[in-house]
Amino acid sequence: MVKGEGPVRTGVTAVLPHGGDLFTEKVFAASHVINGFGKSIGLPQIDELGTIETPILVTNTLNVGRVADALIEHLLIEKATDTGSINPVVTECNDGYLNDVWGRHVGLDHVRRAIDEAATGPVAEGCVGAGVGMSCFGFKGGVGTSSRIVRLSRREFVVGVLVVSNMGAKADLRIDGVPIGRQLSEHAAQAPPGSIIMVVGTNAPMTSRQLKRVARRCSHGLGLAGTASGHGSGDFVIAFSNACRVTRDAPDIEAYERVREDRLSDFFRATLDATAEAILNSLLRAETTEGRDGHVREAIDIGLLKSLIKADCSQ
Amino acid sequence: MVKGEGPVRTGVTAVLPHGGDLFTEKVFAASHVINGFGKSIGLPQIDELGTIETPILVTNTLNVGRVADALIEHLLIEKATDTGSINPVVTECNDGYLNDVWGRHVGLDHVRRAIDEAATGPVAEGCVGAGVGMSCFGFKGGVGTSSRIVRLSRREFVVGVLVVSNMGAKADLRIDGVPIGRQLSEHAAQAPPGSIIMVVGTNAPMTSRQLKRVARRCSHGLGLAGTASGHGSGDFVIAFSNACRVTRDAPDIEAYERVREDRLSDFFRATLDATAEAILNSLLRAETTEGRDGHVREAIDIGLLKSLIKADCSQ
Amino acid sequence: MVKGEGPVRTGVTAVLPHGGDLFTEKVFAASHVINGFGKSIGLPQIDELGTIETPILVTNTLNVGRVADALIEHLLIEKATDTGSINPVVTECNDGYLNDVWGRHVGLDHVRRAIDEAATGPVAEGCVGAGVGMSCFGFKGGVGTSSRIVRLSRREFVVGVLVVSNMGAKADLRIDGVPIGRQLSEHAAQAPPGSIIMVVGTNAPMTSRQLKRVARRCSHGLGLAGTASGHGSGDFVIAFSNACRVTRDAPDIEAYERVREDRLSDFFRATLDATAEAILNSLLRAETTEGRDGHVREAIDIGLLKSLIKADCSQ
Amino acid sequence: MVKGEGPVRTGVTAVLPHGGDLFTEKVFAASHVINGFGKSIGLPQIDELGTIETPILVTNTLNVGRVADALIEHLLIEKATDTGSINPVVTECNDGYLNDVWGRHVGLDHVRRAIDEAATGPVAEGCVGAGVGMSCFGFKGGVGTSSRIVRLSRREFVVGVLVVSNMGAKADLRIDGVPIGRQLSEHAAQAPPGSIIMVVGTNAPMTSRQLKRVARRCSHGLGLAGTASGHGSGDFVIAFSNACRVTRDAPDIEAYERVREDRLSDFFRATLDATAEAILNSLLRAETTEGRDGHVREAIDIGLLKSLIKADCSQ
Repeated sequence: MVKGEGPVRTGVTAVLPHGGDLFTEKVFAASHVINGFGKSIGLPQIDELGTIETPILVTNTLNVGRVADALIEHLLIEKATDTGSINPVVTECNDGYLNDVWGRHVGLDHVRRAIDEAATGPVAEGCVGAGVGMSCFGFKGGVGTSSRIVRLSRREFVVGVLVVSNMGAKADLRIDGVPIGRQLSEHAAQAPPGSIIMVVGTNAPMTSRQLKRVARRCSHGLGLAGTASGHGSGDFVIAFSNACRVTRDAPDIEAYERVREDRLSDFFRATLDATAEAILNSLLRAETTEGRDGHVREAIDIGLLKSLIKADCSQ
Repeated sequence: MVKGEGPVRTGVTAVLPHGGDLFTEKVFAASHVINGFGKSIGLPQIDELGTIETPILVTNTLNVGRVADALIEHLLIEKATDTGSINPVVTECNDGYLNDVWGRHVGLDHVRRAIDEAATGPVAEGCVGAGVGMSCFGFKGGVGTSSRIVRLSRREFVVGVLVVSNMGAKADLRIDGVPIGRQLSEHAAQAPPGSIIMVVGTNAPMTSRQLKRVARRCSHGLGLAGTASGHGSGDFVIAFSNACRVTRDAPDIEAYERVREDRLSDFFRATLDATAEAILNSLLRAETTEGRDGHVREAIDIGLLKSLIKADCSQ
Repeated sequence: MVKGEGPVRTGVTAVLPHGGDLFTEKVFAASHVINGFGKSIGLPQIDELGTIETPILVTNTLNVGRVADALIEHLLIEKATDTGSINPVVTECNDGYLNDVWGRHVGLDHVRRAIDEAATGPVAEGCVGAGVGMSCFGFKGGVGTSSRIVRLSRREFVVGVLVVSNMGAKADLRIDGVPIGRQLSEHAAQAPPGSIIMVVGTNAPMTSRQLKRVARRCSHGLGLAGTASGHGSGDFVIAFSNACRVTRDAPDIEAYERVREDRLSDFFRATLDATAEAILNSLLRAETTEGRDGHVREAIDIGLLKSLIKADCSQ
Repeated sequence: MVKGEGPVRTGVTAVLPHGGDLFTEKVFAASHVINGFGKSIGLPQIDELGTIETPILVTNTLNVGRVADALIEHLLIEKATDTGSINPVVTECNDGYLNDVWGRHVGLDHVRRAIDEAATGPVAEGCVGAGVGMSCFGFKGGVGTSSRIVRLSRREFVVGVLVVSNMGAKADLRIDGVPIGRQLSEHAAQAPPGSIIMVVGTNAPMTSRQLKRVARRCSHGLGLAGTASGHGSGDFVIAFSNACRVTRDAPDIEAYERVREDRLSDFFRATLDATAEAILNSLLRAETTEGRDGHVREAIDIGLLKSLIKADCSQ
């Protein structure tokens, strides 16, 4: 059981489209809002310019402003940028069941650490960063990832999805589409306040319009995972490709590569599958967590899951 | 086996939001484009005004203009309307595998018959109207419907979905989420050119913005049914509520009912479920069909389906 | 005075992004809806794929389906295309004051002629094609064009705008922003049913996202010309660049040029200015026209205009 | 000349849709992005739910996160709300020419004061709040307001527009459409980095969809004022109606009033006119200001303006 001193302290999860300076080497990006009941900063500029210029950060609901400000502080310090215009991108889920959301316990340190960890190591999953206090399908949720390979012209491209999962009721859970949740709970259960943030990254060259097409397939993945994106859910997608870099010293007429339009179907399928699997992984990698006021969110029981999959079939 | 004289002749499927004069008693509506590779007329006006004022028609790809023109002809004749401004709403799927799509074999008669049938009888499913030549998950597709009840304030509301299904490869088929298709076909199969048109209707009072929220849940339903909306798919949703009527003689300040915003979650879930089930029903109600040039599309084998569901579970 | 046998017969206006086969050499494009009270076919596919693959046609309100069907007929005959999927793009204005809009007097001949004329000659302005029966600011309107040069990297690019003008009340007219209309009419005048279709073309390389940015500046141009886009107006923009061609035999990874993002401001300004000037030109090139039932729409009096501009200044 | 100790200190401007508790009595709202090169928090939730639940704040570019966090702090303290979900709405303009934008000199005090002043007094214009360091058409800009009366059913409704103006080059300035700026500067002048935030409020009952229609007319107003919304401009509109209140204790089926759709044209015209006039007022009410590093931005010379209007006419 994860139990810190006092309540759970939600942190920050960062995704870096590449390891260099994102501000001077922007990448193509797009956002997609599946259900907009969520706080967010930075999405309109992504869609206007088709680029992203900072790490993509996820935190909890009342921390979006604070984290955006810390990100700017960090960039002003670290990058010594002379710009007066930075578009921080921050989204959130509401972990108020486990975490003291009102306390807004994040700051520059959390942002710096999240960015450092994203820059160097493998992606941590489960109860880490923004995932510390999240709940998913009535179990402990958090950070999950998944990826797929897409072959094109004898090259292999990757589509990776990172989610911070915080949505769904037990009855709705599906594993690879199989409706396991019906054996876990009455269907009439109230949907808890929730959200899910999805970040889709690929190294295949795509324009922002193409990335928006890709991002829209996260909706399909949510359906396969079992959620209908309830009214109170903030379901946001940010998609990027790091194949091209947009720099300040580009000529007046630039040329960029992109995947041929009718080759996108495989990327769509990859996005659907990786979204659903990333949600599953967020459950499988989470640990039972005790939070504020004695609230406890149990990790999903993997042994039980296996038996339920068989039980479902015997009906 | 459905076999007419010569090739299959795709017709027209109509959905009438209510049985009266739609032009003088408009209903609230919204459109949602999941993947816009499809021909369509009328969607921008639906979204601008939040209303629909004609029957909603579905046909095949090269017939959209022809059917729109026939709809106007029909309305000018039948309704003796004096307006010079009618917004016909027509969408399509491409049935070129079975049907002589180039021949554009529809006209006023098809439109009139589709509207008459929609006005009077139960909704026909399977190989009827726009569904005559459609293919779905590699089998014969067509028209399918499904509905759910949503209880609110001791009242029962209905969410109904009608689809014209023409998308997906065998390998992708899922029944209630269970990945049956993997036993039917290699996964590497090429996605055929496809599309799916979804019409969502409810008698719960909703604004156009709320209907757009509802319409977005069809994406989730597609994912649960197994499709990722391939590049070449025209996946359009039109959603309406017939609870309120917008008339010419309304006062300058009107009042309309709507479902309280945070009560929408159940309608979202209903839409997801009914979308996936309507696709399934379009398969189950279709019959093996021989079309042009000896092309044959087999109906799905229901006995085989049942055995596959069990086989899937025994793994 | 333009006066044919019997009522005015609205035709069709065509814009060809280039002189070749648009279906096999598509160009980048985007649509923008300023006020969607208008009938249109084809806009969602433009925005999904970022390309346009047919001539862009404008006609009157009840003819959109008929003209779309004729365009398909024309393409099937002329181009002997084997495709079953063509996305015709047709928009409209309502010329019911002068023209027998209910009669829908267009067909294949009008479409063919419009395309032929667009392919060969200079662009005709005034009471031609779709402009025959249109009214603008209470005067005779119709087709107008304007263009601007944008210099970039020692090259000269063109931004051209073609409008079919059919909106506005006399009181609202502005010439280069100067509020001339106030001297022409009481301001309380009812806005007539109207619309304006704007086609923006450039030979500068732009992505569809960039073209959408360009298209949005037509709104600014409308404001400068004096109209607020009334409720009943169908104000649609279609923007394209013919610098790149998207072909079937492109490799899986394509490269396309585009204008560097921060060089777009001059194109935005050019679009605003050319939109306002194209509207003005549609007035200046129109002739007094007698239409159905003795309805007459006067051409604007250029001499009077000049005197009003001076009168305005003397106040 | 406005000159504080050291550099200009940009503050915060607040708009309160009504004087009560916005969180428990939300109002209908919509956002519209004319050019999205700007930092913003909160817009997606406005559009998803069609409501706004906090004061609308404007500040400068690097302060958006900080101001959003301060707003949450303020609401948690003042309103003792028990919610863990608040959607702050903050937008910005870049005043880096006069102000030390990197220093981010705002905090809870500025937010509190802006809200207090908005709640009690008349709206201050010119170099106040977020307007302290802004530049507009090459002159000192800032806060400007304007309003129009719309008569409907013997009632009078108000459409009010507040802008924080920070865009445009001298050559582009227009007064009531008249191109005064051409006499002030060479047209080739570089567009400075800029932005304009527009808040449109009305007491006429409107749905969020209707408010979005209204908001789109700000584009027309910008065109009439002379700007084309340059690439680097963040031109955002937030529109609200305070005629209806959305509360927690509403029944499951609510009824709300709205203006009859075809009565909106007058509101569109009012929005266009008030937007252009608010920009003009932001210039007329501003004072010459000395900022960081000796940078000075001159107020527009009203006497010169008058003479230029006459000079323009004599040509």
